[in-house]
Amino acid sequence: MSNYDRNAPETLKLLESLFENQDFENILEIFRELHPADQAKLFYGLKSDQQEVLLEQMEIPEIADIFDELDDKQTVIAARNLPLPFLADIIDDMDPDEAADLLGDLSGQDVRKTISLMEEPEEVLPLLRYADETAGGRMTTDFLTLELEDSADSAIQYLRSTGLENDIPYYLFVVNKEKSLLGVIGLRELVCADPGQVISDIMESNVISVQAMQDQEEAAQVMKHYDLQALPVLNLQNQLVGVISHDDILDVLVDESTEDIYRLASVSDSALEPDSRLFLQLKGRLPWLLLNAITALLGSWVISNFGDLFVQVAVLAFFQSVVAAQGGNTASQNVAMIVRSLALGKVKPKQIIPILLRQILVGMFLGTMIGLIVGIGVGFWQANPYLGLVLGLALLGNMIVASIVGTLAPLILEFTGQDPALASSVLVTAITDIIGFLIFLSLARVFLPLIQQYI
Amino acid sequence: MSNYDRNAPETLKLLESLFENQDFENILEIFRELHPADQAKLFYGLKSDQQEVLLEQMEIPEIADIFDELDDKQTVIAARNLPLPFLADIIDDMDPDEAADLLGDLSGQDVRKTISLMEEPEEVLPLLRYADETAGGRMTTDFLTLELEDSADSAIQYLRSTGLENDIPYYLFVVNKEKSLLGVIGLRELVCADPGQVISDIMESNVISVQAMQDQEEAAQVMKHYDLQALPVLNLQNQLVGVISHDDILDVLVDESTEDIYRLASVSDSALEPDSRLFLQLKGRLPWLLLNAITALLGSWVISNFGDLFVQVAVLAFFQSVVAAQGGNTASQNVAMIVRSLALGKVKPKQIIPILLRQILVGMFLGTMIGLIVGIGVGFWQANPYLGLVLGLALLGNMIVASIVGTLAPLILEFTGQDPALASSVLVTAITDIIGFLIFLSLARVFLPLIQQYI
Repeated sequence: MSNYDRNAPETLKLLESLFENQDFENILEIFRELHPADQAKLFYGLKSDQQEVLLEQMEIPEIADIFDELDDKQTVIAARNLPLPFLADIIDDMDPDEAADLLGDLSGQDVRKTISLMEEPEEVLPLLRYADETAGGRMTTDFLTLELEDSADSAIQYLRSTGLENDIPYYLFVVNKEKSLLGVIGLRELVCADPGQVISDIMESNVISVQAMQDQEEAAQVMKHYDLQALPVLNLQNQLVGVISHDDILDVLVDESTEDIYRLASVSDSALEPDSRLFLQLKGRLPWLLLNAITALLGSWVISNFGDLFVQVAVLAFFQSVVAAQGGNTASQNVAMIVRSLALGKVKPKQIIPILLRQILVGMFLGTMIGLIVGIGVGFWQANPYLGLVLGLALLGNMIVASIVGTLAPLILEFTGQDPALASSVLVTAITDIIGFLIFLSLARVFLPLIQQYI
Repeated sequence: MSNYDRNAPETLKLLESLFENQDFENILEIFRELHPADQAKLFYGLKSDQQEVLLEQMEIPEIADIFDELDDKQTVIAARNLPLPFLADIIDDMDPDEAADLLGDLSGQDVRKTISLMEEPEEVLPLLRYADETAGGRMTTDFLTLELEDSADSAIQYLRSTGLENDIPYYLFVVNKEKSLLGVIGLRELVCADPGQVISDIMESNVISVQAMQDQEEAAQVMKHYDLQALPVLNLQNQLVGVISHDDILDVLVDESTEDIYRLASVSDSALEPDSRLFLQLKGRLPWLLLNAITALLGSWVISNFGDLFVQVAVLAFFQSVVAAQGGNTASQNVAMIVRSLALGKVKPKQIIPILLRQILVGMFLGTMIGLIVGIGVGFWQANPYLGLVLGLALLGNMIVASIVGTLAPLILEFTGQDPALASSVLVTAITDIIGFLIFLSLARVFLPLIQQYI
């Protein structure tokens, strides 16, 4: 039972031929049968001239539904060429939080003009005050409030009078005249209450909330921790100014995970996709690759100080990379664990020392095992026990260093207010590469006479 | 207004001292003031003998609430030493989906005994049939159904008779006698309907659902795409057997992101945390490090075939790592983008060729820029233009190779039914390292007489 359409290629093909015949009636019919989420996906797949023609044919509420579902960037692109009075009508019909995001992405002059053309700018204006990545930037103003003295029955009557469309349909928020948040009541509790009961008797007065200026990631963690479907947002005067809904939090968590994965892999633009434009690809990737080139050349310079060794014992050049690679890999494992634990709120400052000690121990064990296996293996392979000894010791040393760097780098970034995922492979492996070369070649110099005996 | 407690260290300290004095009354009082999510977090922070004592003092519904909130693994550990009749009572009180997870983690004999001791095993038994990572493994059986002929008013009466506790509080599912799913109605629509209206007139009959055997990740994507708060789950006979709620989907998305981040960093156990036990750390990390060691030694073997070069031109040993590092970094960027796009359902099979061509183009541009900068830089640094030429060309070649490998490896894994994140740095950079050494040293051999002119 596949009762949802995730834009089967057939639908797109059908649309293409309908567009060729300018058969807009049938195109609109196809769109109208779909869920807005699927409409948005289909719309995004069209060429931009097709999008423009389609927008001319659609009703304003239909366009608003599609714009609500598109990614922020996609909405801006679609809205780019619309006449401002038309755009103002669409924004009036959009969800306030999506409308605010779209307005926030327009140029300063267009924002003012569009707002002046809107019928109900008051729902959107308060949202423009908050930065995109804050709780205030994620919240909606489209929620319902009650007062303490209301009865359950009058609350239900009120609900019926407001109609069905609402961003936060299952919670009602209880406020006083100053708009301070006093309690919350779920629709289920309201329906099950005696009609005559007053709200103050049935509401939950211990409400979990966040401040509008708090990071959206903190809001997401609170909602996840308490399994909340809606999270009230307060301003500095503790007035209820908005509510974050469960689907916003999904978006936050997915966006933050993408950002972490990209940063760990040294991609700086987390909106980058495999088929993004060439320029965006270069912009998001070249800076890190350049940094990597510079640190790699620093490694070359370290090696160059041991240049005479290779003339005497060329075999050293075969194995220096093994030490660097193992250090880099060990450190990457540490960084991934720390970054993820921090993102999920599992590491607290007082745990840093125990975690560091544990990871040094882990590095010693891993280093001993890898050092023994590789050292003995290479000792036999090259029939040179001292080469094996030097390699094994260098692996042990570098893997302990890697454990320390890979653990401390993201923790230090976090507790100095930066993104721990910036401790990406480029930065951390630069250190482990250079220290790896240094340990291996220094040990080789110390043991050189012994290594040379076997060559 | 910090009206939620995320286990301030002070609370833990206070508890410690209360435990020392065996002051269970005050301990229980502290617990009872907290949200179950915080109770669970606090409980998890206790020593295991403290946990045991506390469980003896608590009421069964309190324990069930805490067990509902603990991670699956934590629940099993906490439940380990409980007498089975006591455990059966707790499981009776738990959410069916959490109860099924706990039962599924007990030993076979304990499962049978516990189930025979339970009062209401019928809510949990159907859930035991489905694997943990399927939609069926995530769903709950604790939902409410209506029939087509019911009136809005009788539906509300029914709702009031069932009380407040319910896993899926805001949706009612409409089924026929054969339990086929006919529609869904939100509590808001029900409240706003005329009391006399029949359900069949107000329900949404175009219901989005999934099959119980489908992967939980697919269910999560459907819920995210359509912003659903509850997703009905059908069996092979298309009967409604359960519902997935919004908080389950948060867990799925977070778990899947963690798994991807860990796999990309070559950590095979996605439950591993920085302070996990030494044995678990070694088990989750050593196999990948060993694989890395083997592939690195393969690289050493490739280099060893050019051993004579280093005796003649030691300077080559300084720069081979630069070529390998840039290739590895380029490939990691590609893998991260592809893995994330696949996880978010953004790449379709027919896009593979355009994406590959785009990425080859990107690799050529990145390689040309890095190759020029590093090649010219090193040419001047070493006063050896041909060394710079060889290095630049090797960088260009390896970065194109890296773009191809980094793009294709995760795509091939995905479309052969494996996890694309297995194309982790270890596997992909092994290839780019080896090919990098090969290109650089082969080119060096070709240009050797020219390079030697400048030494």
